[in-house]
Amino acid sequence: MSLARVHNFSISLDGYGTGEGLSREAPFGHAGERLHQWMFATRWWHELTGGSGGQGGLDDTFARRFAPGIGAEIMGAGKFGYPGWHDDPEWKGWWGPNPPFHTPAFVLTRHPRPSLAMEGGTTFHFLDASPAEALERAREAAGGQDVRIGGGPTVVRDFLAARLIDHLHVVVVPLLLGRGVRLWDGLEGVEEDYTIESVSSPSGVTHLTFTRAGVAP
Amino acid sequence: MSLARVHNFSISLDGYGTGEGLSREAPFGHAGERLHQWMFATRWWHELTGGSGGQGGLDDTFARRFAPGIGAEIMGAGKFGYPGWHDDPEWKGWWGPNPPFHTPAFVLTRHPRPSLAMEGGTTFHFLDASPAEALERAREAAGGQDVRIGGGPTVVRDFLAARLIDHLHVVVVPLLLGRGVRLWDGLEGVEEDYTIESVSSPSGVTHLTFTRAGVAP
Repeated sequence: MSLARVHNFSISLDGYGTGEGLSREAPFGHAGERLHQWMFATRWWHELTGGSGGQGGLDDTFARRFAPGIGAEIMGAGKFGYPGWHDDPEWKGWWGPNPPFHTPAFVLTRHPRPSLAMEGGTTFHFLDASPAEALERAREAAGGQDVRIGGGPTVVRDFLAARLIDHLHVVVVPLLLGRGVRLWDGLEGVEEDYTIESVSSPSGVTHLTFTRAGVAP
Repeated sequence: MSLARVHNFSISLDGYGTGEGLSREAPFGHAGERLHQWMFATRWWHELTGGSGGQGGLDDTFARRFAPGIGAEIMGAGKFGYPGWHDDPEWKGWWGPNPPFHTPAFVLTRHPRPSLAMEGGTTFHFLDASPAEALERAREAAGGQDVRIGGGPTVVRDFLAARLIDHLHVVVVPLLLGRGVRLWDGLEGVEEDYTIESVSSPSGVTHLTFTRAGVAP
């Protein structure tokens, strides 16, 4: 069974998955890098970005679940590029020549363009599709493996609302952003489909996992 | 030093401190009692309500901080009564003849009425006042002890926004209520004044504490 999984999705205490004022210079707007400091501190991140160092422990253990068993990713337009990237034919994503996905990556956008093969196995495909349609396409590309729903908050929320997520890992960072894009809006009762666990880390963040009944990711 | 403290303030994962549709029959609206099940299960609650039984452990340990050192409470109109209680001269609060406060309790309302002495040491006073004014009045009544800011969410938020809270204990319950009154709205950056700790409980809730720098409640 090919699951739909979310990993390392960071939100503020007040529920924002990104800030306000997103731009080419500020991918997370006024949130800056504050939602992801816990992740940048892990050994996993250091390895992923070609360095050494970083910390082991609980945060690292969760972070490492990002890649194993994943055969494709689905992301929103904002995770691929700045507002307006679709008018820039040279834009190849935030992620550099060798993006960290290393699988097919489906970008949900109302402005599809030809697929873009990058180094390291990532190929970006551009889809104007519903969550269910996109998941079907990604599953075909994943060759029997799981599909990661990569965010941002609107995309994760839409997939939760469509009851398509099997496993959700959210990291709550003790910040009050006050404005931006909220993850949880309009999801009343969605938790009833899941077993939920919470564990707080010495770093100050709290890891939440939602696992659909009968599923063992 | 007399501190302003919040204890046992429960919110849903999506940040709601109460639901929608509050009425005499439904004090928390569609949230029902789901935000407070963790508290009802504690030994502290059983003792407070005159029974025996209940569970010890982390939730109980936090819950018990409710009373010690507190000399007065401030609450919103909705914690005293249903929408429209001010038109009902017989209404004496949600809390029965012997309310669990056992101190002066200041009710913030635009419809003040004469003070109301109950059994067990609780006297309700009715104030049309700003957070700072109410805190000054409550401090006078507290005789050098701390003041508990008792909620609901609008009151806690207003006191946080006015930078009047010294210690905040919030309990995050793994529920998505979807609608109601949010605690965190409009509090961007307020966390910078505090040391924040998070600890998850085997019951599934997460206890968050905000403690103002230099304060040891």
